[in-house]
Amino acid sequence: MRTHLITGGAGFIGSNLARTLWAAGDAVVLLDDLSNGRVENVADLVVGDRAAFRVADCIDRDAILDAVASAGGEAIDEVWHFAANSDIAAGVADLNIDVRRTYLTTVAVLDAMKSLGAGIIHFASTSAVYGDLGDIAISEDSGPLEPVSNYGATKLASEALIRASCESFIKRADVYRFPNVVGAPATHGVMLDFVRKLKATPDNLQVLGDGNQQKPYLHVSELIEAMLFVARHANQPYTVFNIGPQDHGVSVRAIAEMVRDAVSPTASITYGQGARGWVGDVPRFHYSGERLKALGWTGGLGSERALRRALSEITAQEGRP
Amino acid sequence: MRTHLITGGAGFIGSNLARTLWAAGDAVVLLDDLSNGRVENVADLVVGDRAAFRVADCIDRDAILDAVASAGGEAIDEVWHFAANSDIAAGVADLNIDVRRTYLTTVAVLDAMKSLGAGIIHFASTSAVYGDLGDIAISEDSGPLEPVSNYGATKLASEALIRASCESFIKRADVYRFPNVVGAPATHGVMLDFVRKLKATPDNLQVLGDGNQQKPYLHVSELIEAMLFVARHANQPYTVFNIGPQDHGVSVRAIAEMVRDAVSPTASITYGQGARGWVGDVPRFHYSGERLKALGWTGGLGSERALRRALSEITAQEGRP
Repeated sequence: MRTHLITGGAGFIGSNLARTLWAAGDAVVLLDDLSNGRVENVADLVVGDRAAFRVADCIDRDAILDAVASAGGEAIDEVWHFAANSDIAAGVADLNIDVRRTYLTTVAVLDAMKSLGAGIIHFASTSAVYGDLGDIAISEDSGPLEPVSNYGATKLASEALIRASCESFIKRADVYRFPNVVGAPATHGVMLDFVRKLKATPDNLQVLGDGNQQKPYLHVSELIEAMLFVARHANQPYTVFNIGPQDHGVSVRAIAEMVRDAVSPTASITYGQGARGWVGDVPRFHYSGERLKALGWTGGLGSERALRRALSEITAQEGRP
Repeated sequence: MRTHLITGGAGFIGSNLARTLWAAGDAVVLLDDLSNGRVENVADLVVGDRAAFRVADCIDRDAILDAVASAGGEAIDEVWHFAANSDIAAGVADLNIDVRRTYLTTVAVLDAMKSLGAGIIHFASTSAVYGDLGDIAISEDSGPLEPVSNYGATKLASEALIRASCESFIKRADVYRFPNVVGAPATHGVMLDFVRKLKATPDNLQVLGDGNQQKPYLHVSELIEAMLFVARHANQPYTVFNIGPQDHGVSVRAIAEMVRDAVSPTASITYGQGARGWVGDVPRFHYSGERLKALGWTGGLGSERALRRALSEITAQEGRP
């Protein structure tokens, strides 16, 4: 049995990961400041003795250490750092949001790991570190790295600090760069947004931008599987993995129609102007999947099937009173 | 006449830049927390009315704004952000040093620029953002970017935030990635270290590492010329420039001998073990100079001449009582 510390452990991805690790027999210590996460996401786990949840702001090293100590998890084998600002648009308006919630949480987590003697970190990064590289198949070694959002910039900043820490107290780091992740329990994202809008105004759906933005989507179940596959099989001190479909993605227009057909089939759809939905939104990209494939990973739902699976989960989630 | 704000303006590079801009007829507002910089470096400039110096910790946006206001420099045309931790080894021991002094100063400078309506930033980055890419000619688009020091990691983090800010309030950013810079007034670096050691113990020079570490060196006068050339000629909203010699550099052993011959010709030299002087030290790299050349820059002292020029300046500096 291994003990995992998960920051953002009550959030969308963190809670799914916690459930999978817990189901496999491991112990989990979950920290979350509940800005996006919800206690309900992990309530069924923490009734047992292999899971503990603590409210903690992971920008504060001492708060992390106190929470870990009170949860009896001093011997942490692996850290999964998922706490971050997930509202990209808010981060564009005020650069301190991403600096604090995405980067300074990484600084504090690394500092806490140094104190705990925990040497293995898994980091949730993003395809946004690549910025807009145009129409190439993006590999992990692609450059230049010119993120166009503060979200992408502070994830790249976090990666860099983790990499440098591998020269001293970090024994192993796996960095996962993934695109939009869909599934339940959804806390944000275009699909949840559309479902909620259509429930509020069932006859019309207003879409930001012209709807032609096209991006890859990854289902959370596949992300978890791929990360755990990497955690078991990768054997370098520091490795970056692109996790995501290699297709060119699905357009916002297609997602709008998919949601409309499921939630309110007679609704009209109205589009705005411009290729980008907001400042810092990368209009189009696609991944090379070679490195993950070389490691032996063979998954691959593809963007459209990932979205269809998520749609049924999100409509179920939002249908609850 | 343009007005330039220079952070780290009393430091080694900042004071040289200030002097050049001032001599060309521009106005300069110099901020420095005096952790490495010295008032003496700019004392002769600030007696006139085109230069102002204020002690300010650039981690604090309001301190920057107050200092700029008190210096009468509200209308800042261009910002040169040079304030940073320059003690790479100290930053390896405590990751908060580089996070605070290199990255959070960039956050505060950007935030201050937003308040001031200043849209042009020049950023002093480093070859350390590339980490250890092995024996390739490094171009600005080379990847992956895997810095092995917190210094390199927080410089890369700063670049990323500046890049993302170009999507909103920054109109133009030039990023200069340079290797070790030599010249006077020297505040740190291997050559100053050797000169001081030999003045303290004239019969022997102790060298950290085996002396085979080989790196390119750039003279500060050439760095300033190249940056000002870029500032005048580059015309993209965001551009990264490698500034440095394209040679494979000079070994620590050769520098030790060069300094010994000048300062204490009969001294013996003792070497330590290992290829790396300290954690986070990149053992060897060389630059491609294509982008700067394409812009029309034709400079190029080369590492050895840069070091020889610096040696005479540093021995003169250290000879002073």
